[in-house]
Amino acid sequence: MDLSEIGLIGLGTMGAALSLNIAEKGFRISVFNRTVSRVDGFLAEAGPLAERITPTRSLEDFVASLAEPRAIILMVPAGEAVEAQIAALRPLLGPDDLIIDAGNANFHDTNRRAAEAVAQGVPYLGIGVSGGEEGARHGPSIMGGGDRANWDRVSHILEAISAKYEGEPCATWMGEGGAGHFVKTVHNGIEYADMQLIAETYGVLRDGMGLSAAECGEVFGRWNDGPLRSYLVEISARVSAALDPETGSPMLDVILDRAGQKGTGRWTVIESQQVGAPVPVIEAAVAARNLSAALETRRAGQELFGAAPQSLPDGTLSLDDLEAAMIAGKIMCYAQGFDLLARTGAQHGWALPMPEIAEVWREGCIIRSDMLNDMAAALRGEPERNLIFADYFADLVARNHGALRKVVSTGALHGLPMPALSAALSYFDMIRTERSTANMLQAQRDFFGAHGFERIDAAGAHHGPWGSS
Amino acid sequence: MDLSEIGLIGLGTMGAALSLNIAEKGFRISVFNRTVSRVDGFLAEAGPLAERITPTRSLEDFVASLAEPRAIILMVPAGEAVEAQIAALRPLLGPDDLIIDAGNANFHDTNRRAAEAVAQGVPYLGIGVSGGEEGARHGPSIMGGGDRANWDRVSHILEAISAKYEGEPCATWMGEGGAGHFVKTVHNGIEYADMQLIAETYGVLRDGMGLSAAECGEVFGRWNDGPLRSYLVEISARVSAALDPETGSPMLDVILDRAGQKGTGRWTVIESQQVGAPVPVIEAAVAARNLSAALETRRAGQELFGAAPQSLPDGTLSLDDLEAAMIAGKIMCYAQGFDLLARTGAQHGWALPMPEIAEVWREGCIIRSDMLNDMAAALRGEPERNLIFADYFADLVARNHGALRKVVSTGALHGLPMPALSAALSYFDMIRTERSTANMLQAQRDFFGAHGFERIDAAGAHHGPWGSS
Repeated sequence: MDLSEIGLIGLGTMGAALSLNIAEKGFRISVFNRTVSRVDGFLAEAGPLAERITPTRSLEDFVASLAEPRAIILMVPAGEAVEAQIAALRPLLGPDDLIIDAGNANFHDTNRRAAEAVAQGVPYLGIGVSGGEEGARHGPSIMGGGDRANWDRVSHILEAISAKYEGEPCATWMGEGGAGHFVKTVHNGIEYADMQLIAETYGVLRDGMGLSAAECGEVFGRWNDGPLRSYLVEISARVSAALDPETGSPMLDVILDRAGQKGTGRWTVIESQQVGAPVPVIEAAVAARNLSAALETRRAGQELFGAAPQSLPDGTLSLDDLEAAMIAGKIMCYAQGFDLLARTGAQHGWALPMPEIAEVWREGCIIRSDMLNDMAAALRGEPERNLIFADYFADLVARNHGALRKVVSTGALHGLPMPALSAALSYFDMIRTERSTANMLQAQRDFFGAHGFERIDAAGAHHGPWGSS
Repeated sequence: MDLSEIGLIGLGTMGAALSLNIAEKGFRISVFNRTVSRVDGFLAEAGPLAERITPTRSLEDFVASLAEPRAIILMVPAGEAVEAQIAALRPLLGPDDLIIDAGNANFHDTNRRAAEAVAQGVPYLGIGVSGGEEGARHGPSIMGGGDRANWDRVSHILEAISAKYEGEPCATWMGEGGAGHFVKTVHNGIEYADMQLIAETYGVLRDGMGLSAAECGEVFGRWNDGPLRSYLVEISARVSAALDPETGSPMLDVILDRAGQKGTGRWTVIESQQVGAPVPVIEAAVAARNLSAALETRRAGQELFGAAPQSLPDGTLSLDDLEAAMIAGKIMCYAQGFDLLARTGAQHGWALPMPEIAEVWREGCIIRSDMLNDMAAALRGEPERNLIFADYFADLVARNHGALRKVVSTGALHGLPMPALSAALSYFDMIRTERSTANMLQAQRDFFGAHGFERIDAAGAHHGPWGSS
């Protein structure tokens, strides 16, 4: 039996899809799953690809089936399962055998595991894989972290299985330790915000303008041919158009409005707090999901105060207004995400490749869009500069913030909730206000806590003449 | 020499003030400071109170000067200093001697230290003290955490030195471990939001209506006689009226608009993420401080896009509109804070006394206000219910959200940044929307990640008929 070039443990949805992708690209792969019966089921699904797949039924057989030095992908649930799998695997491996955690790890865990691996002198990588099942099967976006030399050992495989944007593989090494999983985390934070911006706009179409789900789908479809062209807008058109086979109603109308979250949005917000990077659009998106979960409270609120959303008088907003507002909101959201990347990277000593991050997100992942190609170009010039200052985006913002203003103002008056669009607008207005109102905060803080303040006309720390309080 | 009833280590601003407060209330207190020369300076400031103060110049002398079982307050910088002080102190103490960390600890550290103390069989308390220097000197708000029995040992002292609201001491035991420091953390998160709401309103007065600092002060002064009556509105009036002795200009106009933060706002947001409790008004306040720190970016933004704030046409907004908007915004902010308290308490197994938390904040602390007395009454009925559903506040919200709507809408149109007021409005509108737009999020998530969704007409987890993507 030929030895495999790579192994994969964990044949859940993502692991199975990734294994088939690897086999399809011509690599021989060994697979193992803790529940061993799953291995047979997987092989049955593999069809002709099964000839390049070596099924194994024990960890020992799995390890023995791999060419040395070995490379093993873990695709098991983040947390304890990864810990347990590494602990079970290491004693069976040689000192040059590489473990690659491709799950949805918290990057702090990856940092710790990478440090442990370095201490033990064994190779380890943490890679973020985005694109859902479809991406894993046919080409995900891959964000790698760990020692560069270890990345180079397997990059030919990861690039081969990754998505391609105009021929370029969407698989990039981001930095040491948990850098890859961190970039994936911010990707997901932006994904939350992108989705929330769409949902808020959908709310205006549905509740403000009275459009049916099918009509909303047509609008999203048209926007997908313009500057907003992206996977998320595309699938918004598709889910809006879909009909429920059971009732014949639009699917959107039978889906309960209670959204879950798996933690990466939360992690993004927590990390932004650690480094003091404002990401209010992402925060608004996470809060909106949490509020959506409070269905009973919302029901009680509607009963007590009346339903918030009001229909808009004809002509209050145009579809062009909404499209422009989404463009402006989206740019703010990405500006915040890249700012967070830059600041966290600096804190962790990573030289995160900002343009390459935008590039690796152009295809394969959930937030993929053509606009990311323009962002890559903008970041190539000045990677540390806030995205809204790059000529291309400054121009887009200048042309579209008026509509954002109009939409947010209308939403406020008519009870159409727009937490993310509002946060985008506030962010923009704050970032172009040289003289803000934080002088009031500083005066208060000095009054009650003797925190001191800076003066506009003199250096140093000062205190107010507040007298005794 | 008489032995002291209590000891205090750390004669910084807060520790010195607290020591004088303790002595003034008739307790004999021993003090120690790592930099020993500070002890003499402190004693010189103590005046006639010095007769009840025992200065000590070594940790051994300090311990020997205390009546057994001892009670020792630490007022040293949070973090390493607390760790080091406990490590130095414990070997000198008996098994019944109580250490009380009264610093600005992260409640996770307090939880850990409390657990360590339990393991060692020694008593430990963590107490949050709010009110700044003035409060520490004449009556702070005190939020206690740790074993109830240990709290009871010193509660007569803590109640004596605490602020009083209509005769009732503002010193309350909140629960085991870090409960006291956690309640103090949320207090500070609300404090950030309260301050930001004031700052945004000040921005409308200054930039939208063209009022001078003195005129702003008059407005805040008037509001302090109405429903907004509170320490923060009172001091906003005072700092607005203050003149700079050097230039004769209003102090507000010479203070640089770059605000700092010491971490408790950040901790509040991080904790809200951990339990999934939406606190968007607090998040907006923390983000606004972070953006205020980015002065160079704001300057560049104003240069590129033009200054955001525009003056308002006469009559666009009235002072009554602004007052009403602040009332509505403030209620949303506190509703979020109490919701966070309830959820975190449940997660940590604390039975946090919700009405008593509102009560302990009525006097002494920075967010003290009469409205907290009404909140205590509302929470006494149904402590777990969102505050906006209590009759009194539901009525206030119903009467004032129209103005909040008008103010936020106007701010959006005229570039007056209102991140916190906007977040308050979005929160309110989301919490009274039975049918939100999260069905779109759920459809998208199922489309790309097979996350599944609930249906409105059938139980269980479902998937869409999306076809292959």
